[in-house]
Amino acid sequence: MEAKDKFKINLLGAEEQARRLGKLKGQMAAAGISHALVRGNVNIYYLTGRVFRGFIYVSAAMEQPYYFVREPNHLVSDGVAPDSHIRKPEEIPALLEARGIKVDSAIGLELDTLSYSEVLRLTACFGQQPSANISPCLRRARAVKTDAEIAKLRCDGEKQTLVYERIPHCFRDGMSDVEFQIEIERLSRLEGCLGQFRVAGPDMELFMGNVLTGRNADTPSPYDFAMGGEGLDPSLPVGASGEIIHENAPVMVDVNGNYNGYMTDMTRMYIEGEPSVKAVEVLELSASICRALADMMHPGVPAADLYNKALQMATDAGMADFFMGHRSHAGFVGHGVGIEINELPVIAPRSRDILAAGNVIALEPKFVVPGLGAIGIENTYVVAADGAPEVLTKAPENFIRLD
Amino acid sequence: MEAKDKFKINLLGAEEQARRLGKLKGQMAAAGISHALVRGNVNIYYLTGRVFRGFIYVSAAMEQPYYFVREPNHLVSDGVAPDSHIRKPEEIPALLEARGIKVDSAIGLELDTLSYSEVLRLTACFGQQPSANISPCLRRARAVKTDAEIAKLRCDGEKQTLVYERIPHCFRDGMSDVEFQIEIERLSRLEGCLGQFRVAGPDMELFMGNVLTGRNADTPSPYDFAMGGEGLDPSLPVGASGEIIHENAPVMVDVNGNYNGYMTDMTRMYIEGEPSVKAVEVLELSASICRALADMMHPGVPAADLYNKALQMATDAGMADFFMGHRSHAGFVGHGVGIEINELPVIAPRSRDILAAGNVIALEPKFVVPGLGAIGIENTYVVAADGAPEVLTKAPENFIRLD
Repeated sequence: MEAKDKFKINLLGAEEQARRLGKLKGQMAAAGISHALVRGNVNIYYLTGRVFRGFIYVSAAMEQPYYFVREPNHLVSDGVAPDSHIRKPEEIPALLEARGIKVDSAIGLELDTLSYSEVLRLTACFGQQPSANISPCLRRARAVKTDAEIAKLRCDGEKQTLVYERIPHCFRDGMSDVEFQIEIERLSRLEGCLGQFRVAGPDMELFMGNVLTGRNADTPSPYDFAMGGEGLDPSLPVGASGEIIHENAPVMVDVNGNYNGYMTDMTRMYIEGEPSVKAVEVLELSASICRALADMMHPGVPAADLYNKALQMATDAGMADFFMGHRSHAGFVGHGVGIEINELPVIAPRSRDILAAGNVIALEPKFVVPGLGAIGIENTYVVAADGAPEVLTKAPENFIRLD
Repeated sequence: MEAKDKFKINLLGAEEQARRLGKLKGQMAAAGISHALVRGNVNIYYLTGRVFRGFIYVSAAMEQPYYFVREPNHLVSDGVAPDSHIRKPEEIPALLEARGIKVDSAIGLELDTLSYSEVLRLTACFGQQPSANISPCLRRARAVKTDAEIAKLRCDGEKQTLVYERIPHCFRDGMSDVEFQIEIERLSRLEGCLGQFRVAGPDMELFMGNVLTGRNADTPSPYDFAMGGEGLDPSLPVGASGEIIHENAPVMVDVNGNYNGYMTDMTRMYIEGEPSVKAVEVLELSASICRALADMMHPGVPAADLYNKALQMATDAGMADFFMGHRSHAGFVGHGVGIEINELPVIAPRSRDILAAGNVIALEPKFVVPGLGAIGIENTYVVAADGAPEVLTKAPENFIRLD
């Protein structure tokens, strides 16, 4: 970061910020919300290009947002003034009024993520004006990425691809899934991975990703990810469990692609020795589902159509029982990605999302086959206005040899 | 985990669970809450020893809790029945009524962590009965650890101490703070660190801990941790920033101690070469504040007294301007630790917490001195019924040599 930018709130530049605010205001207009106070890290980062502690006030009637920054904060420590320093949110209404803004209609708040207690407190600040839910507006605005966001995701895809290509170098004979994952984590971090794995939804937890091999792949997990795994401890029951990686046994690698605040999502299969004929067949089925769904990725297509096509292909191949899990099944085959790993659109049977140009979508048609483990790939795509989607995740899609 | 325990919900054993439920019911009685529905991962883990997707119904009138487990879930996949499988929380009231339980008073919910939208949904399930806030009850119950919890924390302390003693072996000349941290992350993970860093409060984020050296230590961060740092990216502005570790420059290491769902918190100072006389003095001041505060750690002592003592000692040493930061200051000198890194009691000037036997408290009297960087140690203590607290974090407290 340039020193001169260090204490500036908006790191996006005026045009890019206007583009994102425009999307948000469009959603607010559709929802009948005339103004909002945005507070969550993810949404503050979306609207300014940085995380700070405070609030962003967005109004349909104003071109620029107002910032309210809580002290102590890195943005106020050098005396370069953001719009307003506050110690507590109760100060906001008077500061707005001083600028001629009267809060006399329901204010939009992130009701799907802010705690109940915090919403009560913020609502009380505004004299018990009821609040409106700005969360769906933000999710929908963020689902359609700008060119600047796509550029960041392209960069993630390049770094993640580089890491995935180097993964065989960190494998050693006789390793457990956890030991292998630790070396992949290190590779990723050395390439610039920030580690933080932002995921929407209460109680979704995962550390740096998932490496699955053998029977562990068929251990269901309480988390709503595509794949499960027992994990190392009942306090975090997901992922690698200490299973030894055997010769000729497929290993699924799906690790954190956050290199700059945005993240791509990629899964690849690795193997020491030779995959069985069946394993190769299942992997080819996964890749062919990805290709078929990518061919359907055009603006206006219902997300549910993609899911149904994937399920149809799995069924036609006699693999429906193993599609997206075996002892338990995930209810989706893909999802938007961006600042969080699970954004809109959702590629699921009852999804009402319609694809739009600028959606960035991870497709992960995966199978869990008893005796083989978890098999499948995952790619991240950008939906184009015309023509084929751009693939951001480019590591080889066949079994990658570990020896 | 034993195979037979795999699908059992309560992994704590009947006695230990009864002990924890007893604490919670005591808090509920004091708050006038007769029954509650617990849903957050952290609290579900506290009450059962495992994370699952669902709800725990706790009533003052019942010895045992009821479990409502959402499908798909690892606990129901093998047909070993938990109390009740549900697909959605709307099914809970009828299931309770079938057992003769009528929800006719305010039900306790985790209002400080559940989203506003989720609380509205749960409240509607119970016919718009108002909800009561169970969050403070859970926080207070969890602040006083049982012997079984302390045993887990003791184990964390041993593992973390082992890792901290090995840290010099992973240092290489000319490394940056980030490169050093990545090797420490790997060391920790290989020793069994789960990685997941659970922190209470909206918008607290940190990946695996903080390694600070040089001027970066004086870069304030928007997060409410004891120390700051610019971080690698404006999307996660905290911690190591790529600063090169220079000879004779102190390096502060404060990394994740979660080895089993609980975590200890330890900070130590490392140096390649020789610390300056001033650096040694400041570190000795930090250690002597720890000793003085540990001497005060007895049941019945106000947490604020500990903070005031620390500030007094810093002031007497002429170091008040550098205490808990320099360009920005953290408002506390210690905090409870357990399943989350920031539990009760809070060791802060306006804290109303009173120490109790079984509190597990991390003390981190740290200084940021221009020209020297961040200096200080952090230890985790168990408050004893009688006598001195037990120290769980035992790595050497002087500068640990990297060469």
